[in-house]
Amino acid sequence: MKALVLERKGELSLRDIDLSLEVGPDDVKIAIHTVGICGSDIHYYTHGRIGPYVVDAPMVLGHEAAGTIVEVGSHVVGLKIGDRVCMEPGVPNLASRASKLGLYNVDPAVRFWATPPVHGVLTPYAVHPASFTFKLPDNVSFAEGAMIEPFAIGIQAATRARIAPGDVGAVIGAGPIGIMVALAARAAGCSRVFISDLSQEKLTIAGRYQGIIPVHVPTHALDAVVARETAGWGADAVFEASGSPQAFDNIFDVVRPGGALVLVGLPVSPVRLDIPAAIAKEVRIETVFRYANVFDRAIDLIASGKVDLNPLLTNTFAFKDSIRAFELAASGLPSIVKVQITLPDEPH
Amino acid sequence: MKALVLERKGELSLRDIDLSLEVGPDDVKIAIHTVGICGSDIHYYTHGRIGPYVVDAPMVLGHEAAGTIVEVGSHVVGLKIGDRVCMEPGVPNLASRASKLGLYNVDPAVRFWATPPVHGVLTPYAVHPASFTFKLPDNVSFAEGAMIEPFAIGIQAATRARIAPGDVGAVIGAGPIGIMVALAARAAGCSRVFISDLSQEKLTIAGRYQGIIPVHVPTHALDAVVARETAGWGADAVFEASGSPQAFDNIFDVVRPGGALVLVGLPVSPVRLDIPAAIAKEVRIETVFRYANVFDRAIDLIASGKVDLNPLLTNTFAFKDSIRAFELAASGLPSIVKVQITLPDEPH
Amino acid sequence: MKALVLERKGELSLRDIDLSLEVGPDDVKIAIHTVGICGSDIHYYTHGRIGPYVVDAPMVLGHEAAGTIVEVGSHVVGLKIGDRVCMEPGVPNLASRASKLGLYNVDPAVRFWATPPVHGVLTPYAVHPASFTFKLPDNVSFAEGAMIEPFAIGIQAATRARIAPGDVGAVIGAGPIGIMVALAARAAGCSRVFISDLSQEKLTIAGRYQGIIPVHVPTHALDAVVARETAGWGADAVFEASGSPQAFDNIFDVVRPGGALVLVGLPVSPVRLDIPAAIAKEVRIETVFRYANVFDRAIDLIASGKVDLNPLLTNTFAFKDSIRAFELAASGLPSIVKVQITLPDEPH
Amino acid sequence: MKALVLERKGELSLRDIDLSLEVGPDDVKIAIHTVGICGSDIHYYTHGRIGPYVVDAPMVLGHEAAGTIVEVGSHVVGLKIGDRVCMEPGVPNLASRASKLGLYNVDPAVRFWATPPVHGVLTPYAVHPASFTFKLPDNVSFAEGAMIEPFAIGIQAATRARIAPGDVGAVIGAGPIGIMVALAARAAGCSRVFISDLSQEKLTIAGRYQGIIPVHVPTHALDAVVARETAGWGADAVFEASGSPQAFDNIFDVVRPGGALVLVGLPVSPVRLDIPAAIAKEVRIETVFRYANVFDRAIDLIASGKVDLNPLLTNTFAFKDSIRAFELAASGLPSIVKVQITLPDEPH
Repeated sequence: MKALVLERKGELSLRDIDLSLEVGPDDVKIAIHTVGICGSDIHYYTHGRIGPYVVDAPMVLGHEAAGTIVEVGSHVVGLKIGDRVCMEPGVPNLASRASKLGLYNVDPAVRFWATPPVHGVLTPYAVHPASFTFKLPDNVSFAEGAMIEPFAIGIQAATRARIAPGDVGAVIGAGPIGIMVALAARAAGCSRVFISDLSQEKLTIAGRYQGIIPVHVPTHALDAVVARETAGWGADAVFEASGSPQAFDNIFDVVRPGGALVLVGLPVSPVRLDIPAAIAKEVRIETVFRYANVFDRAIDLIASGKVDLNPLLTNTFAFKDSIRAFELAASGLPSIVKVQITLPDEPH
Repeated sequence: MKALVLERKGELSLRDIDLSLEVGPDDVKIAIHTVGICGSDIHYYTHGRIGPYVVDAPMVLGHEAAGTIVEVGSHVVGLKIGDRVCMEPGVPNLASRASKLGLYNVDPAVRFWATPPVHGVLTPYAVHPASFTFKLPDNVSFAEGAMIEPFAIGIQAATRARIAPGDVGAVIGAGPIGIMVALAARAAGCSRVFISDLSQEKLTIAGRYQGIIPVHVPTHALDAVVARETAGWGADAVFEASGSPQAFDNIFDVVRPGGALVLVGLPVSPVRLDIPAAIAKEVRIETVFRYANVFDRAIDLIASGKVDLNPLLTNTFAFKDSIRAFELAASGLPSIVKVQITLPDEPH
Repeated sequence: MKALVLERKGELSLRDIDLSLEVGPDDVKIAIHTVGICGSDIHYYTHGRIGPYVVDAPMVLGHEAAGTIVEVGSHVVGLKIGDRVCMEPGVPNLASRASKLGLYNVDPAVRFWATPPVHGVLTPYAVHPASFTFKLPDNVSFAEGAMIEPFAIGIQAATRARIAPGDVGAVIGAGPIGIMVALAARAAGCSRVFISDLSQEKLTIAGRYQGIIPVHVPTHALDAVVARETAGWGADAVFEASGSPQAFDNIFDVVRPGGALVLVGLPVSPVRLDIPAAIAKEVRIETVFRYANVFDRAIDLIASGKVDLNPLLTNTFAFKDSIRAFELAASGLPSIVKVQITLPDEPH
Repeated sequence: MKALVLERKGELSLRDIDLSLEVGPDDVKIAIHTVGICGSDIHYYTHGRIGPYVVDAPMVLGHEAAGTIVEVGSHVVGLKIGDRVCMEPGVPNLASRASKLGLYNVDPAVRFWATPPVHGVLTPYAVHPASFTFKLPDNVSFAEGAMIEPFAIGIQAATRARIAPGDVGAVIGAGPIGIMVALAARAAGCSRVFISDLSQEKLTIAGRYQGIIPVHVPTHALDAVVARETAGWGADAVFEASGSPQAFDNIFDVVRPGGALVLVGLPVSPVRLDIPAAIAKEVRIETVFRYANVFDRAIDLIASGKVDLNPLLTNTFAFKDSIRAFELAASGLPSIVKVQITLPDEPH
């Protein structure tokens, strides 16, 4: 089967590769329609690794995917051939201690698409457990379906924050994940969400949404803006989505007494945290690792019209142009938010 | 000072009455601009009591109020003459055990406007603690300001429900409080909120809001609609806002396993609760008594454009026509949601 | 294989019965050593049904069990032949929506020992999933191991209550479950737990524990005692463990403002709940259905010496005397708390 | 009035000083009986400052106090002359936003005994708001009453951790606060609490308590011990109570997936936090600043016999020997846990 293969750091090829497509009794087989490119796909391409996960054998990329069911296992209920679906890319051991607690995202046994040594799904067909495959309502497109995965990270962050209705949010970093977090925070109850970045271009995209207020860091300090807009009180929930170590300087000045700081971005180098400042305000710090139990709720937010992800889709490529799609996505141009690849229409 | 006085059950008069207007060091004096009529005002008018609270002396009505500050006490900071404000009508003993816990709404010492023996504010001036008086942003009208109080009940209910983003909500009863609860539940993260009532007219008003889905009980059972729309799973949060004992029949059939039932309405007669049904799903039942720490967040939801209460304001009267306003509000016509009274313009 | 079989309502026999003992790759096979008799076992014996669960075919009784592993499936890790274990008797579909949320106890697909049509384990051998089988430390006896199951209900109740350290608890009903709940509430942080009952004999057993304070209802009203001992404030967490509809009269007088009522007992007839009283104090009502993710923590509380269940074991019978054991347990004598049956020693 | 005065860094004197003893309507006047020496008292003595709080004028030390009421204000209810009491040393503005939320400990307006510029209470009399003064039951001694304050920090930490019954805890640092935290964690539901330190002598004191397990860091790594004792899972709640930057190395190896890290100690220098390690386990990090709403519950834990603080009281001095008491406390000898000073008996 043809697939977009990361041969090694910096080398992609669109070529045939052997992939198992055996459909177990609890599985479905999906004809992949759309796959988004995630920052982690790009990072494996450009760096060959993410922390302990090293690409030491050819690996198919892609884990933000939507498609159509073409086969169902013998035990599957609730899904049928022809259903349009999106897929949760990480599959845990459901009998593990973490999974039984409802925290299957932190089960050490999780197998996650396009995370070595597990192949991704930039390929015409994939087999996946039915319980991690979610039907898309008619009014949710494949493009939206393939953005559920990054949006799910935003929802997980907003859930961990325990937002109360009317809270003020602040997001550091207006990349794709930062914007997803801001949208999720607003959907989760925030009245206003401030979002900061160095790039005016990214902020312009974020600022098109009602209730999301851009803060251009070279011109205005986030803590000063939030203090001014909240009568000196601070934001109820602050989300770090930049991964920049500099973002942690004075970060607790943005948070209100008793508020929350939610860590979403992976810092690229060690971070000095001002613990006395956190303690003086008794700040709660939450961390976000992927998501659990979020896909169905994320789809419902899209289907109900509460959140519109379409403005974030900036570029779409055909499968045969996958390598070009990756090169563009890796360019880091600020006008690019989400790049997607659509697969040949024949099998669908 | 002239005021709308409930002389006794069924008898209102607009007349002069002696009211203390002494401004303490932590108080502000407000020229009242707009006062909404609440179900409790009507109930005191028509029944002369609510549970243990009996009108046994003339009492000024009205507790949903907005106005303009005309005097500030010597210790007040953060508010000044000319500020447009709305007021939280219940003032607790801040040194009580409940208040120190952040639960000042259940402090037995609370003094609440228009709850015997405490006068309300359907009168040109009122004095109130600054810490229970909230500045209105320029883009929030007095009419909206006077609807913050009932909306705060909705916010309290949505907060108690602990809604996760994308949850499905269901509200029983489409009166003013039911609609406020539905709006708050959606603002707090629900993707969709089903709302049920016997009156098609009330449901039409509620159904004008995106994401709020009317269920006409004589035609469709709420549990059946919710089951159909959630693949048999149930609603994550169900709000009882009708006070009707019949609403409790099969109420747990509407809730998902592990979901929440939030009790907002005061049943007019004893209620049989199907405890085995609640236990079988391990439902959490929350109750709502007014609100605490909600006004600032409610105002922010209005000011940020996330919630629009204006469609709920169906009738406005001049102060001199207050009695007529109450007669209309007490008529129970389904086309009436919120009735407000505006005071003479001179002092403002 | 010989087993204690409930042939039909009121008729027990100790006889051979065909039971599957096939060990799947994720299962273990256990030589049963000790089985406790639960109120539900007795209820099936005396009434032939519990709510919708009807005994319409012969069923082996018993679900409070401990034993020794004699065989392990090919995929099992963490357990080995010879391990002394106790078993969680309900096995859900781990891929269900409820299970993925960590709420596997409310998964409608749960199969629970000795709940029709699923056989129990009053028989020499049982096969069970390894992930619902828990190793007993050396200092935890089989008798204690077989009491983990009812104690787990207490732990689930204490967990749902969200006890803060130093809280005051109150338990209505001093049967085996009531005492287990009281012990769990104290272990979970309560400084003092009041426990009420009509039977002085039961209260004497409960009152032997430090920090558990008996309240003899015919002499003292629970609400009055709690009010006196908490300066009129009330108990932080009240647990209903009697199932008596009378217990609900004035039950909210026992709870503090903003406190919790936890429903453990299944009322035998419909219950009138004073919802206005609950609302006036904004009481949170939690319900408890069996337990999830509790066995490991319950075992640790026993092994660490924090909770001693041994005083609750009042009667032990040999397997051959199982029917006599049930007759005694069903007698309802107040001096009987927990009755256990031990199986022939040969195979162990 | 005579008092122990910190004249400046390193210089103590026991001398007369003018202190206001005016009793307002909501205040009580207390004859001080016992005052414990806290690490912060010592730090002001040895360093002249703690972070932004600088001793730039003579200041009376001491904030862990118990005594007897000798006068009550006109509005006080619930306390009377002769009552034995302990006092919560921080008094907030109860009308502030933080206080109304129940988070009065993080109200920026808090005035806290022996924190510049507020005097402490190592002096025969003090005046304090009745709502921050707590009656001691007859079976709680003055010495125990004066240890409620440091124990309250432990309770706050255990509350923030949201311990479930049977959780495994781990505390880094076996100083007075570390031991208080360990005792609170066990009282709050932990089955076992591991506590680590460099000093074997301190660990010996901690290890005398049932369920508290010493880990001598030079011999055994805490993460290795916890992993071994929890089958590789980790501790549910880890408390950092040493303030040592080294403690943060590998700290997330001690925590289970989805567990909590609670920061109690103030690091003396900047700390590098391994955020990717926290994120990979989705660890929740809580911070503790003093306490709120804890004193009554802390007293109840002592009075009910659940926690015994007496073994921690290692040294008692007379008021006239206060300076000697401070010198001993400042010596840092590992055999010293809590040093207290008792005042002359005449006025009591």
